[in-house]
Amino acid sequence: MTKRILVVGGVAGGASAAARVRRLDENAEIVMFEKGPHVSFSNCSLPYHLSGIVENSDSLVLMNPDTFKKRYNIEARVNSEVIKVNRKEKTITVKDLATGGTYEEAYDKLILSPGASPIRPNKIEGIHHPNVFTVRNVIDIEQLNAYVKTKDMKDIAVIGGGFIGVEVAENLRLAGFNVSLVEFANQIMTPFDYDMAQILHKEMVDHGINLIVNDGLAKVGEGFIETGSGKKIDAQAVVLAIGVRPETKLAEEAGLEIGKTGAIKVNANYLTSDPDIYAVGDAIEVYHRLLHKPTRLALAGPAQKQARAVADHIYGIPTRNLGVIGSSSIHLFDLNAASTGLNARTAEAAGFGYDSVYVMPSDKVGLMPNSNVMHFKLIYEVPTGRILGAQAIGKGNVDKRIDVIATMITMNGTLEDLKDLELSYSPLLGTAKDVVNHAALVALNQLTGRYNEVKVSEVRELVENNAFIIDAREESEFQTGYLKNAMNIPLSEFRDRLDEIPKDKPVYIHCRSGQRSYNMVMALKNLGYNNVSNISGSYLGINLYEYFNDLVTGRDKIVTEYNFK
Amino acid sequence: MTKRILVVGGVAGGASAAARVRRLDENAEIVMFEKGPHVSFSNCSLPYHLSGIVENSDSLVLMNPDTFKKRYNIEARVNSEVIKVNRKEKTITVKDLATGGTYEEAYDKLILSPGASPIRPNKIEGIHHPNVFTVRNVIDIEQLNAYVKTKDMKDIAVIGGGFIGVEVAENLRLAGFNVSLVEFANQIMTPFDYDMAQILHKEMVDHGINLIVNDGLAKVGEGFIETGSGKKIDAQAVVLAIGVRPETKLAEEAGLEIGKTGAIKVNANYLTSDPDIYAVGDAIEVYHRLLHKPTRLALAGPAQKQARAVADHIYGIPTRNLGVIGSSSIHLFDLNAASTGLNARTAEAAGFGYDSVYVMPSDKVGLMPNSNVMHFKLIYEVPTGRILGAQAIGKGNVDKRIDVIATMITMNGTLEDLKDLELSYSPLLGTAKDVVNHAALVALNQLTGRYNEVKVSEVRELVENNAFIIDAREESEFQTGYLKNAMNIPLSEFRDRLDEIPKDKPVYIHCRSGQRSYNMVMALKNLGYNNVSNISGSYLGINLYEYFNDLVTGRDKIVTEYNFK
Repeated sequence: MTKRILVVGGVAGGASAAARVRRLDENAEIVMFEKGPHVSFSNCSLPYHLSGIVENSDSLVLMNPDTFKKRYNIEARVNSEVIKVNRKEKTITVKDLATGGTYEEAYDKLILSPGASPIRPNKIEGIHHPNVFTVRNVIDIEQLNAYVKTKDMKDIAVIGGGFIGVEVAENLRLAGFNVSLVEFANQIMTPFDYDMAQILHKEMVDHGINLIVNDGLAKVGEGFIETGSGKKIDAQAVVLAIGVRPETKLAEEAGLEIGKTGAIKVNANYLTSDPDIYAVGDAIEVYHRLLHKPTRLALAGPAQKQARAVADHIYGIPTRNLGVIGSSSIHLFDLNAASTGLNARTAEAAGFGYDSVYVMPSDKVGLMPNSNVMHFKLIYEVPTGRILGAQAIGKGNVDKRIDVIATMITMNGTLEDLKDLELSYSPLLGTAKDVVNHAALVALNQLTGRYNEVKVSEVRELVENNAFIIDAREESEFQTGYLKNAMNIPLSEFRDRLDEIPKDKPVYIHCRSGQRSYNMVMALKNLGYNNVSNISGSYLGINLYEYFNDLVTGRDKIVTEYNFK
Repeated sequence: MTKRILVVGGVAGGASAAARVRRLDENAEIVMFEKGPHVSFSNCSLPYHLSGIVENSDSLVLMNPDTFKKRYNIEARVNSEVIKVNRKEKTITVKDLATGGTYEEAYDKLILSPGASPIRPNKIEGIHHPNVFTVRNVIDIEQLNAYVKTKDMKDIAVIGGGFIGVEVAENLRLAGFNVSLVEFANQIMTPFDYDMAQILHKEMVDHGINLIVNDGLAKVGEGFIETGSGKKIDAQAVVLAIGVRPETKLAEEAGLEIGKTGAIKVNANYLTSDPDIYAVGDAIEVYHRLLHKPTRLALAGPAQKQARAVADHIYGIPTRNLGVIGSSSIHLFDLNAASTGLNARTAEAAGFGYDSVYVMPSDKVGLMPNSNVMHFKLIYEVPTGRILGAQAIGKGNVDKRIDVIATMITMNGTLEDLKDLELSYSPLLGTAKDVVNHAALVALNQLTGRYNEVKVSEVRELVENNAFIIDAREESEFQTGYLKNAMNIPLSEFRDRLDEIPKDKPVYIHCRSGQRSYNMVMALKNLGYNNVSNISGSYLGINLYEYFNDLVTGRDKIVTEYNFK
């Protein structure tokens, strides 16, 4: 018997599901309904149209209805909004947006992939001005692009520092506009911890973006916006990217169960509470395999995997649902940044026993061109050593390191496993001891108590309490800038200057990146100093924070020569 | 009691062991003996001095004896050859190469890290001419560099297509010389299978290297070399890189056990047959965790891990020895290439039940700048689906994919695990369904018999036997070049042309990269065609092989537009 499979939504999840159904069943009748004029466009690439990296907006559309029909015998109906699911009758009501007419279509199986829509809070004054934009699809980005490029436009405000906000801000800046980015929280890009986010903040500011954190949008005026704290910022256009809301209306009205997160609830096979209706993508809630609870995760990769699982389930092919860990990356001006699993904030909030290390080794052999510092933070469970997550930021191949950690998390790997990993190496592409091996070794030292570390964030308290801090860099490095109260005892001299190091109080040591200070910590421990700690992140880390500005002498000079400039 | 720890060899393994010993024991007496004038240089970076990528050869030396002394209180004696181990007395005999004098030093623990030396077969005529070079250390590369750059030099022959030979050839070519590379086997770079090696061959040839395979060095003459097959090749200098031999003399003379591979035999803790003598690095044999037997693996990463394990073992810190899988990468002109684990050749030789897939998806979202085809080959065990190895070649981030596979192998991952992996993605850095997910999906289809694939290497037989081959590309693509006898039935038309496709004989389908043909194979299978196969690698793959030259019409045109040009 011919199956009739209807799909609501023709982008990532919907189009993938339809194509997979066709591969499994040449006879199925497959119809895909899309509210907008395009199916199968590259959502994630939308912001790159603003800078011209994607010059032609047509190329954002990967496949048109005609190709779907010819290649896959899939009917893709655009400008067709599904306005009702009639579960008893197993039909849907479709509104033809061109004619305004409605009609019904029967299904054997229905796949919902309606996505999520940008939030636009009605209560904000001026929020419905024609110069306030959101970015969800090709039409949106074309309209925004046309508006900012044809009007006499100089200043644009982007509200919200998530992926879309940051990428839109970057691409508008690359196009030459004065861009302000306003973020309500104390940092942009919440997959990253606060310390790592500082590197992204610096990159934004260094590239001329007016970054405002801890502040929100209060009002859209004529040629300006006003923030919650009362700042007035020039802006002839505003892009709203404060978050998305799963499109649950259709499901709710059909009486399908909605989860606690506000997204559509599905079972292990992405079936909703109706055995003939599946749901995938940004509209559903997924199970977080580390947090052991439902979450929302608006990412393209998981949507595609869900879509495939749905098609397989319809045709009796067994699938498994491992839940999600959340891996993502972003390119931001000269930096790449990527993260996976839990960060310290989410691990803390979930009540994990955990700890972290923050290392900054070279991403390639130091003497090779384009060798750069990589900032790498690893989160692990205490006392098991199980890998929970990681964040990496640098000019080089950060996503490679994060993908290794994502694989480790999926395979329940521990620090021991990570330290032993035999990864590919050649001097132009990496180092013999990779960043991830390095982080695992430091973490194991910490976990097993072979040495102590304090975080960069604790440095202010140490300085203000007159702690005994040793700067283990060479004197010539020390002279270019140093931490208030720090005593310069280079690693190359300390053995002759042991009498200067007290045994009766805590000693904290840093160098440039933490490697030399680690050696000094170990030596002092061996010599009977019982309270010696390494300052994780070291001077490179300290110099990332505005927060330490008053504690550092010669800081400007250091910041200028700093590798991430 | 103060431990006296002597280390023979001051490069990767030796220097790492010494530094780790110091961190564990501030009181140990540590002396490192190095035959050459330098300790702690970057072996892997040596070839890059020839092109000027590493301009100053001094920078190849990472740390000098003075720094070792000051920072780590390690005595590094250069120009000091250890000529004898007196096991009974627990001493070594050292020859001071500057004075010629010898002396003895006592040890509590001895660590051997003598490395491996380039093979120079005495029987070859002219092999000891002063214009024949090998590359092992900084002096070697300085001498080679000085010779080729000061003499009236145009043509250089490199013998041997392993890592060193290929990198030396590349860097000499970048420096402007006419370079011939002569390799005895039928391919360079044996970590790669023959099919993948073709891509590297093409890259060498496209960059003007005179590549000669299946041939060896027979004679070094005045301004030329002669190969085994009788070819005369202009060469005013010769670099010999046909392999290395583990430096076992010292160990052998001391009566330490040598393994079947010809390298020093060690136990799980890298102890030799003497309980006070350890050995690490290129001189030892290691255990291959997939092949379950000893092997030799001259790579820097494993050497560093061994060195650390030795220091830890001396100080009672438990370590584990997982064996090796062999991961490596190389940058070659515009390409990156990396591999891990077994390839089809080694899996076959070891008698594994195995199969492979060869896919060539985009490494980034197609509409992004610098998006490129990535050639990816995945080897897996049949019937378990356990991942055994992978090879990746492309302009982009190939090492990231190989590192994920290396992690999977280490964690005993299967195709199911690989297909589910949630990796980081953003359009400038990857694709929502990563290359490795894609390969796992194709492999699972193949493993579970959901569809059949034939390898590119089988295409000649198919064409010569008049097999029914469908080219599923669009007609405009077909017109630019096609396989002899192939019938053009585009994916977009086949449903209306089913009467042209026979049901009573095998049907083979290819498109450009294998994606469209895969869809057609699945559809035909569903329609009751029982003998339909996808041609893995498809037209992109066919066009890599000189071997298929006579089978392809319009090939030149295709090769020119081919992405790897």
